[in-house]
Amino acid sequence: MGISLGVNQYGKAEVRLVHVDRSSPRHRIRDLTVTSLLRGDFAATHLRGDNSAVIATDTQKNTVYALARQHGVGTVEEFALRLARYFVEGFGQVTGSRQEVLEHGWERITTTGGGEHDHAFHRGSGETRTTVVTRDGDAEVVISGLSDLVVLKSTGSEFHGFPDVPYTSLVETDDRILATAVSARWRYLGTDVDWDAAHRGVRQVLLDRFALTHSLSLQQTLYAMGEGVLEAHPEIAEIRFSMPNRHHFLVDLSAWDLDNPNEVWFAADRPYGLIQAAVVRDDAPPAEAAWAGITGFV
Amino acid sequence: MGISLGVNQYGKAEVRLVHVDRSSPRHRIRDLTVTSLLRGDFAATHLRGDNSAVIATDTQKNTVYALARQHGVGTVEEFALRLARYFVEGFGQVTGSRQEVLEHGWERITTTGGGEHDHAFHRGSGETRTTVVTRDGDAEVVISGLSDLVVLKSTGSEFHGFPDVPYTSLVETDDRILATAVSARWRYLGTDVDWDAAHRGVRQVLLDRFALTHSLSLQQTLYAMGEGVLEAHPEIAEIRFSMPNRHHFLVDLSAWDLDNPNEVWFAADRPYGLIQAAVVRDDAPPAEAAWAGITGFV
Amino acid sequence: MGISLGVNQYGKAEVRLVHVDRSSPRHRIRDLTVTSLLRGDFAATHLRGDNSAVIATDTQKNTVYALARQHGVGTVEEFALRLARYFVEGFGQVTGSRQEVLEHGWERITTTGGGEHDHAFHRGSGETRTTVVTRDGDAEVVISGLSDLVVLKSTGSEFHGFPDVPYTSLVETDDRILATAVSARWRYLGTDVDWDAAHRGVRQVLLDRFALTHSLSLQQTLYAMGEGVLEAHPEIAEIRFSMPNRHHFLVDLSAWDLDNPNEVWFAADRPYGLIQAAVVRDDAPPAEAAWAGITGFV
Amino acid sequence: MGISLGVNQYGKAEVRLVHVDRSSPRHRIRDLTVTSLLRGDFAATHLRGDNSAVIATDTQKNTVYALARQHGVGTVEEFALRLARYFVEGFGQVTGSRQEVLEHGWERITTTGGGEHDHAFHRGSGETRTTVVTRDGDAEVVISGLSDLVVLKSTGSEFHGFPDVPYTSLVETDDRILATAVSARWRYLGTDVDWDAAHRGVRQVLLDRFALTHSLSLQQTLYAMGEGVLEAHPEIAEIRFSMPNRHHFLVDLSAWDLDNPNEVWFAADRPYGLIQAAVVRDDAPPAEAAWAGITGFV
Repeated sequence: MGISLGVNQYGKAEVRLVHVDRSSPRHRIRDLTVTSLLRGDFAATHLRGDNSAVIATDTQKNTVYALARQHGVGTVEEFALRLARYFVEGFGQVTGSRQEVLEHGWERITTTGGGEHDHAFHRGSGETRTTVVTRDGDAEVVISGLSDLVVLKSTGSEFHGFPDVPYTSLVETDDRILATAVSARWRYLGTDVDWDAAHRGVRQVLLDRFALTHSLSLQQTLYAMGEGVLEAHPEIAEIRFSMPNRHHFLVDLSAWDLDNPNEVWFAADRPYGLIQAAVVRDDAPPAEAAWAGITGFV
Repeated sequence: MGISLGVNQYGKAEVRLVHVDRSSPRHRIRDLTVTSLLRGDFAATHLRGDNSAVIATDTQKNTVYALARQHGVGTVEEFALRLARYFVEGFGQVTGSRQEVLEHGWERITTTGGGEHDHAFHRGSGETRTTVVTRDGDAEVVISGLSDLVVLKSTGSEFHGFPDVPYTSLVETDDRILATAVSARWRYLGTDVDWDAAHRGVRQVLLDRFALTHSLSLQQTLYAMGEGVLEAHPEIAEIRFSMPNRHHFLVDLSAWDLDNPNEVWFAADRPYGLIQAAVVRDDAPPAEAAWAGITGFV
Repeated sequence: MGISLGVNQYGKAEVRLVHVDRSSPRHRIRDLTVTSLLRGDFAATHLRGDNSAVIATDTQKNTVYALARQHGVGTVEEFALRLARYFVEGFGQVTGSRQEVLEHGWERITTTGGGEHDHAFHRGSGETRTTVVTRDGDAEVVISGLSDLVVLKSTGSEFHGFPDVPYTSLVETDDRILATAVSARWRYLGTDVDWDAAHRGVRQVLLDRFALTHSLSLQQTLYAMGEGVLEAHPEIAEIRFSMPNRHHFLVDLSAWDLDNPNEVWFAADRPYGLIQAAVVRDDAPPAEAAWAGITGFV
Repeated sequence: MGISLGVNQYGKAEVRLVHVDRSSPRHRIRDLTVTSLLRGDFAATHLRGDNSAVIATDTQKNTVYALARQHGVGTVEEFALRLARYFVEGFGQVTGSRQEVLEHGWERITTTGGGEHDHAFHRGSGETRTTVVTRDGDAEVVISGLSDLVVLKSTGSEFHGFPDVPYTSLVETDDRILATAVSARWRYLGTDVDWDAAHRGVRQVLLDRFALTHSLSLQQTLYAMGEGVLEAHPEIAEIRFSMPNRHHFLVDLSAWDLDNPNEVWFAADRPYGLIQAAVVRDDAPPAEAAWAGITGFV
């Protein structure tokens, strides 16, 4: 009976990089968190502690900073692709790489009477832009996305028609609050993409569809969002969502002779509904392996 | 030798309330977290488990919802004052109250071609608006503020001239990134205030002064921010800040013959500098007790 | 060009359940967080908002509590299997289910002179026991594990022999602190297992191997831990690890004529090394699909 | 109208220090988080950016490490006192200091057949030992404590007899789960104390009283815990608690003809009851200023 090493990868996680483009007095900043992972022939260190093939995780961190200096950062997709190519093309023992880059948004401060400031910024929302580039040999897959786009509709959402199976006590409703924190990841068909434009476009479709879909279920809203993205973006093969249903419960005040016409709600933390689904373009080639390790998706 | 009960308060913490104003099709929402605490003659329950004076914390929670239904929410200050008055004026054993209300911001979704939506929203930044109303007998003190207004300047910040005492190794700089998460709390002189206008005004002064002050130390920036607030807002007696210095360290790439002209930075988590200070109006009456329990301030 | 619904699942996440076994005065408690997800024919709600097949997530929550009442909880594996079987065997539209159960540990309070208390407990470490049961048709896969078993060795760890590739600056060491938060998940070959004994046994092997392996790399330690588990537990097919290298950096005090013989360390937060690997039994059948969505693994 | 600088302090927060005592093969480790704050004549930097008096926060960090190297760490109280004395006695502009030290516990790993290991450890519970030393001129106040000692009783807790005021709907109970996360801080009368013994003793009294008090309210349990500490520890002047009531709600299964004799509970997150109170020795001198900024206390 044999025991052996299975799938494996290693690297440096959560390298915090802030890049300031000072090429004009109007600075531009990119605030990134980079996780660089390498795959390949690393059995020797696992089996014998022989590190002769191990590009130190500290070296991976230094490489992130050095490449940012030499080439700038660009979009998260460009930076992740550059890192993946650097490692896979540069080192024989590295046969693959997974580069995850998160971007934390900043907006310019608008001062009284001064307009947008050249080099003073404030953090935007908690929303994060993200990409995972997987390189396996010569094959590259780019899965980009966003996390924690928190949205809420105060009306225009119903939920009824579900079966009365055992242990059902939920009351049907034709007017509820619908709220969720959208985590979406979409896989591009290639790498010849205007990454910033694509991200901006997808995000707007998500907002449009969330706002404009009269919702009969969070599933229906999710699918409409995904469908809208694929319709508008032929460069995208599929999109996956993980959307918590952030329940808002109408507070029952009837014991004190108070009505509550959908005005006063309790926002619950746990438990929460959870909807996870993919919307796919039928003729797109599958790329299941690239989805491994993407948190919280099917 | 005697042992006795000292200062005490109790109540319900973190009551999550979302209020939807549906008086027009253009809904307005207020998303609040309320902590209601009562003070007074509650020795019996501590000493003997006699609860005959104890307004249950569950009742305090229900009261939050019931008052929101009956009177709406208004500003966080109005809502906290209403709760404090309700409890202190309504119950003989309650001689004081501390009501803390946080507001989590939402912005309208702008849809493609449709402008701002009537009832679809997305969460704004992680910044929180806050108030603590302390009522002691007939006296009311309102301390409002904001938390986690994260700001960054990519230039216009120096730090030098500090003494070379033992264990000093920091290098002087005339150009660094200055970043902080502003937590500010300001005490109003009274309660006849346009709360929303005051909050908006203070916030803008903080941003203006942060952006426009050429900084020789985070302390100097902090003081300039506080001074600006007191100059512009005669209704405010004092303002206190707790501001972490979120260090950004320039990455040294010289080992690989790369310069780094303030472009590539490592954003550190811990440790971090911490500056806490009050800026006060000289003729304002003190109200030290109202500051007790406000997290992270001197 | 068609667009269609891809993989999907839905349910209730993080149902908090505390079960008290009061069958004797010496109470036993199980503190669980349950996430119940269903898979099957749910296209109608996604495409048309037709909920006639949707077992409400609220119903899934109620079912968790009702089954706990009727059958008790038992081990996390037993409870997850019961839930998965209930849903898949009971409802035609449910063709599969993923049940994740976390257990938060409690220990009895030992009172002065009184020994272990019958019904008073304190929380143990932050370590969590976990299981994910995936049922697909009639097939059941049980992947159990533990998270956040935080361990540290203050000596007995070296790291050297890595190649001096570009951007390498790390210094070789033959004595460092090795610290990690072990997250391990192991897949059982079947369901006829003494779950508590297996969990206890695996955990002890992990501790033994971590402590007793003279480490030349975290990879080597990881593999030794996995190998030990598979050697001792024939009921386990494979084990996967995600182990951060929680770096401890020796503080350089030489500028002040102080040596530091591995005594004073800075414990860093980010970035951190990250090692992820599987150790597998060669003749075990694969079950890749069951690993989908398990956070942080390859 | 004048505006001026009020109370202020500054320093380095959350310096992570792990100290390994290697004086014998049986290593001992202390894992600390230190926040060093200085008070004194620092108006010049606030008003003019003149840093000539400012001991850099980076220097404070280095001092933490250098003193740990030179003198070891000892108890958290000894280390905090050493730091406070160093800064206040060493620098004229420093008239006071606040040193907060948290200790994160580690326990030895017990290996199969090998007993307790000499240099391999695992993290204990999430509980933290803490001290805040405030030095003002020559006066020193030591307030020590613990955070997040999470405890639960599965019976032996009642809550009834509260008044039926408006908005009361809570049902009286003579058997409920009582659970809380104890945060306690106690002020010592002096500094000639066996700190480890005192900490151990207080912690055991807290556990004893929590377990053995038949509770009619969380307030009663809290007071019994504080009273017990003051009775057993004449070196302690007062103790303050902040204790959330972590509600466990009995799940109502009656709709499905299931009883629930206190077996199946829902553990709620928010909102939660909150009890904060001091228990004081009557003849102890007050020291109110030393409590400023201790999170979450009255």
